[in-house]
Amino acid sequence: MNTKATLLVCGQILTLDQSNTVIEDGAVAIAGDTIVEVGERAAMLGKYPGAEQLVQPHGLVMPGLVNSHTHAAMACFRGLADDLPLMTWLTEYIFPVEGNLDAEMVYHSSLLSMAEMIKSGTTSFCDMYLFAKEVARATADSGMRGWLGEVLYDFPSPNYGAPENGIVYLEELMAQYRNHPLISITVDPHAVYTCSPDLLKRLKTVAEKHGAAYVIHLSETRDEVEGCRAKYGHTPVMHLDALGILDSQVVADHCVVLTEPEIDLLAQRGVKVAHCPESNMKLASGVAPIPELLAAGVTVGLGTDGAASNNDVDMFGEMDTAAKLHKVHRLDPTVMSAETTLRMATLGGAKLLGAESLIGSLEVGKKADLIVLDMNKPHLTPMYNIPSHLVYAATGADVAHSVINGRVVMRDRKLLTMDEDAVLARLREIGAHISGLVRLGRR
Amino acid sequence: MNTKATLLVCGQILTLDQSNTVIEDGAVAIAGDTIVEVGERAAMLGKYPGAEQLVQPHGLVMPGLVNSHTHAAMACFRGLADDLPLMTWLTEYIFPVEGNLDAEMVYHSSLLSMAEMIKSGTTSFCDMYLFAKEVARATADSGMRGWLGEVLYDFPSPNYGAPENGIVYLEELMAQYRNHPLISITVDPHAVYTCSPDLLKRLKTVAEKHGAAYVIHLSETRDEVEGCRAKYGHTPVMHLDALGILDSQVVADHCVVLTEPEIDLLAQRGVKVAHCPESNMKLASGVAPIPELLAAGVTVGLGTDGAASNNDVDMFGEMDTAAKLHKVHRLDPTVMSAETTLRMATLGGAKLLGAESLIGSLEVGKKADLIVLDMNKPHLTPMYNIPSHLVYAATGADVAHSVINGRVVMRDRKLLTMDEDAVLARLREIGAHISGLVRLGRR
Repeated sequence: MNTKATLLVCGQILTLDQSNTVIEDGAVAIAGDTIVEVGERAAMLGKYPGAEQLVQPHGLVMPGLVNSHTHAAMACFRGLADDLPLMTWLTEYIFPVEGNLDAEMVYHSSLLSMAEMIKSGTTSFCDMYLFAKEVARATADSGMRGWLGEVLYDFPSPNYGAPENGIVYLEELMAQYRNHPLISITVDPHAVYTCSPDLLKRLKTVAEKHGAAYVIHLSETRDEVEGCRAKYGHTPVMHLDALGILDSQVVADHCVVLTEPEIDLLAQRGVKVAHCPESNMKLASGVAPIPELLAAGVTVGLGTDGAASNNDVDMFGEMDTAAKLHKVHRLDPTVMSAETTLRMATLGGAKLLGAESLIGSLEVGKKADLIVLDMNKPHLTPMYNIPSHLVYAATGADVAHSVINGRVVMRDRKLLTMDEDAVLARLREIGAHISGLVRLGRR
Repeated sequence: MNTKATLLVCGQILTLDQSNTVIEDGAVAIAGDTIVEVGERAAMLGKYPGAEQLVQPHGLVMPGLVNSHTHAAMACFRGLADDLPLMTWLTEYIFPVEGNLDAEMVYHSSLLSMAEMIKSGTTSFCDMYLFAKEVARATADSGMRGWLGEVLYDFPSPNYGAPENGIVYLEELMAQYRNHPLISITVDPHAVYTCSPDLLKRLKTVAEKHGAAYVIHLSETRDEVEGCRAKYGHTPVMHLDALGILDSQVVADHCVVLTEPEIDLLAQRGVKVAHCPESNMKLASGVAPIPELLAAGVTVGLGTDGAASNNDVDMFGEMDTAAKLHKVHRLDPTVMSAETTLRMATLGGAKLLGAESLIGSLEVGKKADLIVLDMNKPHLTPMYNIPSHLVYAATGADVAHSVINGRVVMRDRKLLTMDEDAVLARLREIGAHISGLVRLGRR
């Protein structure tokens, strides 16, 4: 193993390690894809004389954020329709357009979302969508770290056609990315209302075979819970448990509508929860019982959901909203402290993805996924408390540099892994095409 | 009147006039401090050949945002303490420090907040704080348009000393800024729990004499309402009405805890309400009944409150939160549409300040207060609907240029009215001083 650092990232270091180490004038030494040392800058400069330096005056170096649930390619639907009842939004806008999606649109729109994620401090994400091979290709091109899968259900897909082709497509995806350094494939049944018990169980077998995460939208809305009760006599959580599916491989997205016994059950089974407060607010789904899940010992990550229902994928904004939403919902300013929220967006996401040994904090031996914020801004000066500023005052636009797996993917807000202007230009064309599809669909 | 334009601001023009005019490739012509024409760019270029041009590729030109309630100088307390019960926060942190405030700290901290406001698209604000002469001086130096007043109550002030000096100080402030083009002085009783009925009534007479807005924190928390009931036998709203104070001169900040009859009364009396959702969330005060106030016909403006309880003064973030909070609180995605929210942050604030003939939309004859957003960003591309992007996806960091009263105060994100680095450096010193005060106060 080569431990000679090739890159030194310098500034105030927020490690988010267990003892919450902060180094005022420090550096993170990176060799290849790995953090090899974290320490005082002066000592490190002497120790790694040939290393490239990434120095930001008034810079804060911290772990990259982990977006625990998104649909990157939906970036091309952002703002297409808002402020509507869910079924109007789906049937009059999203479904007519998704029926006409193609691989090329998904690739470019995913790339757009990844540009936004990198530019707002996210280095890893968990994605569920159609044409997942294209999402994977965009992930590889963007240089991001991704957990992603093809969304599967019991009706024909615009991507793979008949339902029986879905698992074939998934297996191809698994084979293609088996040894990729940045991409992990997940198994993604859409939800209990779109997947039969049989499909849910078959997909669990696939997930077990591959040791893959089993990612599913779960208990997102009251309608979902009532529908599931009517059809199966159980809530969605109890339905999955009755099928023998709930275990520590399961990543449950949303979990807005939960009973107390369900919270305890999720904790017992080791299920992980991806919390998406802004999407839940915008769609008026409700407020997930996150303080209760955390108190029960459930691993919770923070996610943005797709840009069509948020409408951004900025995890700094998501942290701010998460912390404030739970305070006002419980009428208690002490719940969801800045530090709790910050850890949810970093190590929480890493744990949710089974990757806490790889990412989520700045520690020797972990992968070098980190961001540098420019804190020399009116809204970040003076600074008394780092987590407070990160959660309540910073935005994605404060991120100056991003390093993923040891590679500088953004420097001085310029993306180095893609031609941002070309991506934007392509998305303007796709947007015009989509506008046409909506007009057709509404006729 | 000179109608020869001296400045042409070019881009996609969102006028927010009554018929919601949007000009795809347009320009706003400004002569001195006034908008003299809004139209197609090509025609305007021919018509005003000598005018300076402010051109932003993929730029969106819109009215500057109006922050209806803030305490600018509290920027120096941002992040000093968070996630605490209100009384701990006040007695252990804010009060010990405010007792040691001086004019110089207030001036610089106000300037910092104004830097943040300009950089996030706000052009006008309504401020309440101590040492208001310093707030006014900072406002004049920053080039912003401000409504501001000295906070008044029945105990000694770190600024003017004994309570009886408060009105003297206020009258001096009134005299000093009587004819200022950008600054209006307001009359600011702090709240019903800090001002006696006698003081509240005396200040109403002062406000009437000067035709000034009467700005007061009102029904912010359940504790305030219960305390007022116990002391005066009325809720805060009914207390003010019993004193004969409630009328169209009153700007009521927060109004979180209201009954239905109180909502109707506020509408009848023409009281204006400043809504501060992020502060109400962070302090766990509750959710103000804004859809109900709007339905009753009450004028509502949007505000950030001070940076100590938000913790930023970015009105784009505030719009996003406002729209989402009311949807999830009512479990109805159709309330607080993007357009409703955007109008609250512009013309709503203008009406709240009695300035709808001056600001809040881009129309001929209004003052030239406008901002230009750079929409050539991943999170803003493609664009189907302007209000949706502004409310749900844009942040203050997308604002490229700002014009206030016809003067370019920011160009390409560089502040032209102040030395930003010097302000930041001074605030670092003030922050270190405040840290020392808190340590003393907690001993």
